[in-house]
Formats: sequence, structure tokens, C-alpha cells
Amino acid sequence: MLNIKLTVEYDGSDFSGWQVQPDQRTVQGEIEKALRTLTHRKIRIIGAGRTDAGVHALGQAVNFKCQDNLPLSAFEKGLDGLLPEDIHIIAAEEAVKSFNARRDAVSRVYRYVLSRKPRAVGRQYAWYPGMKFLLEPMEYASKFLLGEHDFTSFCKSDGEHENFVSRVLKIKWSVREEEIHFEITAVRFFHKMIRIIVGTLLEVGRGKISPENFREILAARDRTQAGPTVPPQGLFLVKVNY
Amino acid sequence: MLNIKLTVEYDGSDFSGWQVQPDQRTVQGEIEKALRTLTHRKIRIIGAGRTDAGVHALGQAVNFKCQDNLPLSAFEKGLDGLLPEDIHIIAAEEAVKSFNARRDAVSRVYRYVLSRKPRAVGRQYAWYPGMKFLLEPMEYASKFLLGEHDFTSFCKSDGEHENFVSRVLKIKWSVREEEIHFEITAVRFFHKMIRIIVGTLLEVGRGKISPENFREILAARDRTQAGPTVPPQGLFLVKVNY
Repeated sequence: MLNIKLTVEYDGSDFSGWQVQPDQRTVQGEIEKALRTLTHRKIRIIGAGRTDAGVHALGQAVNFKCQDNLPLSAFEKGLDGLLPEDIHIIAAEEAVKSFNARRDAVSRVYRYVLSRKPRAVGRQYAWYPGMKFLLEPMEYASKFLLGEHDFTSFCKSDGEHENFVSRVLKIKWSVREEEIHFEITAVRFFHKMIRIIVGTLLEVGRGKISPENFREILAARDRTQAGPTVPPQGLFLVKVNY
Repeated sequence: MLNIKLTVEYDGSDFSGWQVQPDQRTVQGEIEKALRTLTHRKIRIIGAGRTDAGVHALGQAVNFKCQDNLPLSAFEKGLDGLLPEDIHIIAAEEAVKSFNARRDAVSRVYRYVLSRKPRAVGRQYAWYPGMKFLLEPMEYASKFLLGEHDFTSFCKSDGEHENFVSRVLKIKWSVREEEIHFEITAVRFFHKMIRIIVGTLLEVGRGKISPENFREILAARDRTQAGPTVPPQGLFLVKVNY
């Protein structure tokens, strides 16, 4: 029995997200379908991050168990060839028997891309907020996210989690021509968390609230105090660390 | 009577090219349709470059005559709002009466983007040749294109032009992570010219022909000697100079 780990890139534009859903085109669904063609078996895969509809991945991590002793190239080149062009297998490797892509992840890196200008080329990969904003106060406010916090203010309640405690390990901002990249590394992320954080940081960038207000919103543990959820197309799952 | 000049960006992925064709979705067709909604008149527009299906533009130049004295903002924000999201009006300005976007262009800048790796994200905006290639001999060979030449070897015969003489003013290569950008400025370009040039340069990069062979192919004025035509998705009309 092999335990295979895949590193997967996908363009989320035409998917109803990662997770298998009846009658929906999902990333998990497409990969499982291709694996079935390849192995003639029904294989269930585990993804490290369950990305929403429209969210992209540059390095999603996946694992699955396979009874057949196929060479790794079958899961890299072979599987890649069976997949639609909006999913690409970057790498396949053998993992230890106990490896679970979701449970064993120690942190995840996500990036949200804001555009300073409206655009046609690349509109699937960045979001233009339709107004000007200042980067400096956003950078300043974002540092309050570092460390362990209860992120209830920035999470959609889901009935699944008892609390919304996570630890943010790193925040990185970079400017690339007309794009602003906000990169956040945390032990775990909750549903819509990054998109609500970015929506609230933009209110700081527009001067609607101060960085100090942002800190208070985080401390309040109250979703109604935070800003709106920004759209999915700017969001990328960059990397999963083990 | 106003003569309006537009600077237009578009994602060519879902268009049958620039030029109006019956029952096809074209960039010219969509802009003329939106202008008709805006002005209630049938307006014919002139584009500086007639890009093929799948080819993108970051700065296509367009002009048209308009009898109504609408403010420029109507042709910038107003028109932009009437267009699908894969076309974006960057700017509208008033031009002199005699201005013709096609005839008056003194040079055009195109970019072809090659990817070193297969990819899902951004696959519409770059082409991965499916093999390794060396950049240095391609750069070297491309310098032979500079100056005035008969580009018959790199042009699709079209029955429209008596000769394929043009003057290449500038060649620029740049590397951006996994992408290689080939930028070429010339007085005029013929049908498929850049895509055949890039296809032939790739044969240099793969070591199939030498830079000296490339020079001979250019001199031969014989299409059968050149390499294959690379796909459209890597090609961008960057700018039109007046």
C-alpha cells in the first residue's frame, strides 16, 4: 500500500471549490475522477486546504492511499495528462504510511492579490477594490494579527469549530507593479478568514477605520465589527508546510 | 464631429480575434456594440493591430468618429461599464480630425511570453513549449532581426501584401521568474509574423538550428525554411507608438 503525496496547482476560476459536491465541478472531484481512470479504483484524496469557489492554489498538498505499485511518474506525468488544463500536478512523492496532508500540516501560506487598477488581462488572479487605498496603515494594522489570537471577528461561523484560535506566524507585503501581495502564514485558517481580514484591512487603507480600531476589532471577537468579505479571485493557497 | 482615440486592454482568450466577423465574438464587435448602446448610432472603429484569436492586448489603440458631443468620460468610464469584463478601456482622448489609429502608427510593440514550466494558473497568458531550451542562443539569433528586412520567411502569405518588408527597431528579452518575455518593436507586423519568429527562435534554443542558420532563414525569404507557428496565448500587443 503506497501513501502518495501530491503538490497541486489549480486555477480556481471554473471550480465550485476544492471539496467534492454532487453535480458540481470541484478540484477534488476532478482529481479523484482522473485517479479512477488511472488506477481503475475509487480513491479518496485528502487536501490540506479546502479552498472555496474561485480560490486558486499554487501549492495545494494532497495525499491518498493506493493499493497498486505504480511508479511515481504515473502520479506525476500520467495523472497530469488525465487532468483538465486548469489543474496541474507539480510533483508526486511517496510519503510515510501515517502521513495525512490535512492533519499533519504545521502551517499554511496564503496570498491575497489586490490590484491598484481595473484590468482585463489577469482579472481572474487579482481583485480591484474600485477605489484608492493607502498601503502603509494596512501594513501597520496587519502586524496586530501576528501571534496567537481568537479570530472570531474574522471568521464565518460554521458550526464545525468550537473556537477560532490560530497562530499567525508571518505577514509579508510586497508590491509588484500595479499589484499588492498580502501573504499570511498561520497554523490554521478558518472559513473566509483571509477574505474578511483583507476586507477589514482595506477599510484601514481607505481611512474608514484606524489601525488601532483594527486591533480592537480583533480583540472584540465579534464578526459584526469586521469589514466585508472580499471576492475569492485574489486568493491563492501558496504552500503547505510540514 | 469628434475623433476619439481609445487605449484598450483585452484578454483574447474568449475572442475570435480583433476583427468583426459574422456570428463570432470579436473585440471590435463588442466595442462597436457597446458604442451603439452608448450613442444610439452605428459607429465603425479602427484598431491599430488586428490581433488573432487568443492574442491579448495591454494597449491596443483605436479611433472612431462620433457626431455627438459626449464628454470624454462617457467613452472611458461609460463605455467601460457597457463592455464585458475581458475588455477594459484604459483611456479615452480627443484626437485631431485626421488621426487614424491604423495608418498613423509609427511602430508597434508586441511581447511573447514563454513559460519554462507547465502551469494551470496563468496558462492563458504564456506558452510552455514542452521542452527545455537555452535562452542565450535565442537572444543572439534574434539580433539578426534588427533593421530593415523582407520577412517573407516569417510571414503567412495573405494575398493582401505585395511584400513583407518591415523595420525592426528594438528587441528586448527579460526573465521574470519562470517566464521569458520576448519584446519586439517594429514599424509593422504581418500575419503570424511574431509567432513564426518565436517558433524559429525556439528551434535555435533547442539546438536544432544555429543562430547562423536563423540568419540564413531570414535571408532566404522562404516560409518553408522557418519553424512552426507558436500558439496565440503567449502573445500580447503591448503598445502602439504615434
